[in-house]
Amino acid sequence: MVVKVHGTNYASGPRRVFACFYEKEIEFELVPVNLFSGEHKSPEFLKLQPFGVVPVVQDGDFTLYESRAIIRYYSEKYRSQGTELLGHSLEDRGLVEQWLEVEGQNYYPHVYTMVVQLEVHPLIGLPVDDKVVAEHEEKLAKVLDVYEERLSKTKYLAGDFFSLADLAHLPFTDKLVNSIGKEHLIRDRKHVSAWWDAISSRPAWKKVLQL
Amino acid sequence: MVVKVHGTNYASGPRRVFACFYEKEIEFELVPVNLFSGEHKSPEFLKLQPFGVVPVVQDGDFTLYESRAIIRYYSEKYRSQGTELLGHSLEDRGLVEQWLEVEGQNYYPHVYTMVVQLEVHPLIGLPVDDKVVAEHEEKLAKVLDVYEERLSKTKYLAGDFFSLADLAHLPFTDKLVNSIGKEHLIRDRKHVSAWWDAISSRPAWKKVLQL
Repeated sequence: MVVKVHGTNYASGPRRVFACFYEKEIEFELVPVNLFSGEHKSPEFLKLQPFGVVPVVQDGDFTLYESRAIIRYYSEKYRSQGTELLGHSLEDRGLVEQWLEVEGQNYYPHVYTMVVQLEVHPLIGLPVDDKVVAEHEEKLAKVLDVYEERLSKTKYLAGDFFSLADLAHLPFTDKLVNSIGKEHLIRDRKHVSAWWDAISSRPAWKKVLQL
Repeated sequence: MVVKVHGTNYASGPRRVFACFYEKEIEFELVPVNLFSGEHKSPEFLKLQPFGVVPVVQDGDFTLYESRAIIRYYSEKYRSQGTELLGHSLEDRGLVEQWLEVEGQNYYPHVYTMVVQLEVHPLIGLPVDDKVVAEHEEKLAKVLDVYEERLSKTKYLAGDFFSLADLAHLPFTDKLVNSIGKEHLIRDRKHVSAWWDAISSRPAWKKVLQL
């Protein structure tokens, strides 16, 4: 059965899921949700996802939301299909989880705030708060210094294997590099830069960008 | 081999790990890190945890940080020992992951900000920003309305079984109820209130509070 993904081709949460589905060779159907008209806050959508955000997947009668939960579930369910995204040992998986948490707690919040200020605010006619941007850029730079150190030792975040930990960084790092003019944060760091080239050139991610 | 947990008995991240270890009957040794003297920012500690936060576990020569990654790793490693914390089926685990993400992304950030304002600021002589507190309390109330709806249908967050999703909420909900005077957010909601009573009365959590 084809998995239904309620979302959009441009939002970062759904893009995490699409990247995972292409890596795992899972067939899916995109059910468009119009974020501009507020469809994600409609009573009908809230029945599927009570917090009013995308994505949500429907797989037969099983419904699941939160992009990082969805990618974990499908990486486990189709473990032997497509790219192995959880590592091979229990310890690999532990480190994948560690870096997924670092992405969710230390990386994403800063990039998200910068994207809201620099991309969303101009779109909806709100002023950009330069102080907020500078504050989060400074914090993100410190986080990326830790990544640089880590990636000087291993090719990918959880070790010498591509995993969900790397994949989860794709949508918002793409924003940083290609939408809000902060590519220097990546390019100023030799190993982070090489890592970004390696993960963003994967066929699965290129397919997401063409969706 | 006894697992070493670098942390403190009062910080919320380590408390998630202790709660998990008591539920899973895993022996551990607490290696105290003095947060007041800034030991977590020392060069020696940063070698273990480069972001300078607790907890970190050392298990033989395997090192792991991020509390929510640690609890996933040990719940998987000792799946058949102590309390089953990941559910029984793949779909159970998917929903555990969903609600763990809700905790990390929608619940924790608001409670954390309120705790910083109402508990940490007075301790270090900074003023409390009432506007910030009110803003996050309002957002948290909306999140808890979703919890109320969910918990009117299932006893615990991921279903009718206690799991990591519930356990992850323990330390910061304890702060909300017992440290910063926001118990009403829990008590005003019948099902959330019953859920809190159920999870906070577990012997494992009581042991954490006595550590």
